[in-house]
Parts: sequence; C-alpha cells; structure tokens
Amino acid sequence: MSDAAGSDPRPEFAFINWVSRQCSLRPEVLLGIGDDAAVLKANGQAWVCTQDLLTAGVHFDPNAPAELIGRKALAVNLSDIAAMAAKPCAAFVGVVFPRTMQRGSAERLYRGLLELADEFHVSIAGGDTNSWDGPLVISVTLLGLAAPAGVVRRDGARPGDWIFVTGALGGSLPSGRHLTFPPRVNEALHLHQEAELHAMLDISDGLGSDLFHILDSSRVGAKLDGAAIPIHDDVDLSLPSPERLQRALCDGEDFELLFTVSPEDGERLLRRSPVEVPLSRIGEITCQLGARIDTGGTVQELPRAGWVHDFGR
Amino acid sequence: MSDAAGSDPRPEFAFINWVSRQCSLRPEVLLGIGDDAAVLKANGQAWVCTQDLLTAGVHFDPNAPAELIGRKALAVNLSDIAAMAAKPCAAFVGVVFPRTMQRGSAERLYRGLLELADEFHVSIAGGDTNSWDGPLVISVTLLGLAAPAGVVRRDGARPGDWIFVTGALGGSLPSGRHLTFPPRVNEALHLHQEAELHAMLDISDGLGSDLFHILDSSRVGAKLDGAAIPIHDDVDLSLPSPERLQRALCDGEDFELLFTVSPEDGERLLRRSPVEVPLSRIGEITCQLGARIDTGGTVQELPRAGWVHDFGR
Repeated sequence: MSDAAGSDPRPEFAFINWVSRQCSLRPEVLLGIGDDAAVLKANGQAWVCTQDLLTAGVHFDPNAPAELIGRKALAVNLSDIAAMAAKPCAAFVGVVFPRTMQRGSAERLYRGLLELADEFHVSIAGGDTNSWDGPLVISVTLLGLAAPAGVVRRDGARPGDWIFVTGALGGSLPSGRHLTFPPRVNEALHLHQEAELHAMLDISDGLGSDLFHILDSSRVGAKLDGAAIPIHDDVDLSLPSPERLQRALCDGEDFELLFTVSPEDGERLLRRSPVEVPLSRIGEITCQLGARIDTGGTVQELPRAGWVHDFGR
Repeated sequence: MSDAAGSDPRPEFAFINWVSRQCSLRPEVLLGIGDDAAVLKANGQAWVCTQDLLTAGVHFDPNAPAELIGRKALAVNLSDIAAMAAKPCAAFVGVVFPRTMQRGSAERLYRGLLELADEFHVSIAGGDTNSWDGPLVISVTLLGLAAPAGVVRRDGARPGDWIFVTGALGGSLPSGRHLTFPPRVNEALHLHQEAELHAMLDISDGLGSDLFHILDSSRVGAKLDGAAIPIHDDVDLSLPSPERLQRALCDGEDFELLFTVSPEDGERLLRRSPVEVPLSRIGEITCQLGARIDTGGTVQELPRAGWVHDFGR
C-alpha cells in the first residue's frame, strides 16, 4: 500500500485506502493495493495482476465503435502491466451486455479486445458474460509475468533522479486517442533491460496528478521543466502555450510511461534510446517535497489535483 | 476449453464458447475457459484464477443487506476455487457504486466481503471503485494456489465412478441461502487429501444442469438415484416429493460440491468422511452417454436443461 492514496483528497482514493487498511496481506502478496498492479509470488515465478472495470458513459461513450470499447478495456490493463515492466500473459474478461445490444456488436467488442490480445500474446483464460437492462460494463483482469530483474514500483524514486515520459501528452479524450493508444508494454520491457528504472507508472489521470503517486510513495519532490513537457498534436495548436501545457499536464488518459532513473542512466537513454517512441527528460526528483514547475524562468508550485487552475496566467 | 460449452443450448454458453475459439493459449495457461477456474503456471507454483461479475437485479436483490451482497461477490469465487480443490489467496475487487448509494452502505458491502476474506485467509490485493448513474456492479477476481497434488478438473470422471454431493440442494434463492452459503473451500481441500477426486465442480445452475458439464467434458454418462439426492430443508416440506426432488435438481445457487471418485475411494469416504458436511452418494458414472435418474423403480432420462419439465409426473 502506498501513501499516495492516503494523502489524495479525491473520495475514490480515500475509499480504496480505507479498504486497504481493513485487510492484512498474506505472505504470497508481495505488493498489494497502491501501485499499478499487485505482485504475487509463491514458489518460483512472481506474477503481476491488475483489474480495471469500465462502464458506459464513464470510461467510454456507449456509441463508440464496439471494437474500440473492447480494445480499450484490455489496453488500460496492458498499460498497468507495462507500468510494472512486466510481461502480460492471461486475461479474464467479464462483460455485462445491455439486453438491447446485438450479438454482432458483442462479437465486435470481443474482436477488438482479441486483436489487441493477439498483438501482445495474451490468452483469454477465463470469462463471464451476462446481460441486463443496464448499460455496458466490462471488467478485465490481466495477469503478467514479472521480469527476472523484478517489477518497477512507484516508491523507488531518489533525489537527483531524472524524470522521463514516453510519447506526448494531452488531448487524448477529445481526439479519441484514449480508445486507440498503443500500450507501452514493449517499451517498458526494453527500458527495464537497458536502465535501472527507480520508479514508474502509466499516466491515466494526467501527469500533473499521477506524478504525485511517485512523489508521495517515494517521499520525495520534483521540479519539472515546463518547456520540456511533450505536448501531443491532439492538443489544439491555436491555443496559447500556457493552456496547451495545462492540457498536457491535466487532460489524462495518455497511458504513457512516467519513470525516473539516475542521471547516468538518463544520459545513456538520451544518447541511445532502446525504444522508438520519443523519450523526454521533463525534470528531476528533489529532496524538497511537493512539485514545482519552471515555465520560462518562473518557478511555480504544481498543485496536487487532477487539473491545474489558472495555470501560468 | 471443455466441450460443455459447445453443446449447451443456452446463448451465454455458446458465446463464451465462441470467445474461447478465437484465442490461442500461451504455454503458461494450463487450463483456460471451460472449467470453474483457469490454471496458470510459469516456473514453480501453479495458480488458479477465476472471475465473477455480479449485477444488481440479476445476481442479487439491490435491496438485500449490503454486507450480504459483498459477501456473496467473494463467496461465489471462493466456491469456484473450491471446485478446483485449490487454496484461495488474493482477491481483486472492482465495484461500480450507484451515485445514490451512501458511503455507509459501501463500507458495509466491503465489510461483508472482508469478513469472509478473513475467514478464508484471502488478501484484497487490488481494487477499483467507481460510481455511476446505473445499478450496483461488483467484479471479483480470485487467485488461489493449486494444491501440491494438482487441481481437480471437470473432465476426469470415469465409468464406474461414484457421484457425490456435499450438503443438500434446493431452495437457495427463495430462502436467501444464496447470500449466506458457506463456500466449501476446506471441504474440497480435505477431500482432495483423502481421496483421488476424478472430477469436481460447484453447483451453481443446479445439479440437473451442472452434472452435464462433467459428463460432456469427461465424455461419459450418469445414472442418478433419485432417492439419494439430498433435499435441503429450504425446500417446502409440504410439496409433493417429485416436486421437492425437482427443486433439488433445478433451483441452483446451491454452491455445493459435485464430484466423482472410484468406488473404493467412495466406500472409504462413506465409512470415514474427512469433512463435517454430509456427503451423499447420488449415483454413478456410466459408459452410456446422457443422464438417467431412478425414481423408485422408474428410470427416466434427465433432460439437459436448467430445469426439468413435468419431472416425475
């Protein structure tokens, strides 16, 4: 259990935190609630396990193409497994279909999911389908194999570490990229082989929010370089740059990797990256707690929130 | 994948069967869709994994006490792990709360779940909570440790085997027992130690329906002794006995164990049972396919269905 949940003001985090305090962990549970995925180990291989429940109207537009809804349900879990630098293996898919949904749509939903499963060599090992008068619900549980070098947790960032992100941020929801993003599974595995990743997660709520999960659980702070934060082309180019930066920090659903490494490893990654997706060095970990951002000479506090109010104005 | 799904006329089974045909299994997946749980193994310990998604109005009355709803969400998964004779270990709990649900009810739901988790030494290793305008949805994924002697599948029944059930059957839904039943986890582990269990499952749809999962996947038939089928006190005593028997065969949600063993092991179990819950020998496995039931001298075909029409009249 990380401290992240404890200090997060949002009710859903407070509730998960309450749940995690209610139960003790068996020795096989090496890592429980509070990271991107749990880690289980008995004898031999350690397994990584994550579950996400997606609901129509909350996580996807019920009118989105069924293939893309099915794809996203698996993709967000692949992204969680990637955030642990583990190898996805087997998925369990529970679906509650609205009674009005046609068999053809249901099949397309699974086809979108299965195509992505194939791409990442994931087996559908179990399933459960029901129908009801309510909206579409999909629950995917994904198990992965921990790498021989172990998993990458959120709580290992050290002062002086360089902070990196893969790809570019912002505009995922309005552009529909949240339905089609490529989970950074292979990127995470390659990075894990080439560098000692001290802390990592996948950005789902937005860099400006998720960064605090690493900072809180590692008991460190950060200073970001605003100019280095990669802004996605999906963010309207006609917007003023402070607003574009705010979008990159706060839109969420990017599903890019946020990780920290030593400056030596960081330099090596910048010289010769093991991945095709661009890597951006966006700041560094500090002893001083909290997060600050340098926007062209002005250093401001980065508030602990899902979005940044009046940022840079 | 068992053949059970392939030959079952109910649409949800046909659909799961379609899904299972669409995906190949990785070598780590020793057993995929078609049993009570999947079996995963890399190096060392084999893990058993099952997922169930419960929805308000389908699997429980939304007005039932929240503790019992939470309890059932875990209990049905514990029953699946029991059906593999595995040891439950870690649960992942995804809940979508209706926005109108009070925090107190949400906590009571978790308390009911956590109390049962404690009783069976299960850790809540991951979770996901959301809220929406729709009804309550709970998805539980449960991982268990396969016993050193391996898991008990559905496809190992042999002609001549004796068929057993634990406890008594029928009346679970009207009596509310489906919310409070004791999952037969320890019973399964003890039976697995004391006898060579050839095939096993937990009765969720009713003996008359679930028996066919064992018969189809084992490619055998069965002859049941109607008088030996244990009828639960929850089935109205004033009903005529053929109707009481039908209730025991068809009501479902019993979550008792149905298993087969050699006659030698069967005699041993009857002489000295390793479990406190009553064991009933209800028939035997036959070479002849299909299922028949002897009701006081008349042998009738047991139809492959969720319920038996005009049975014994």
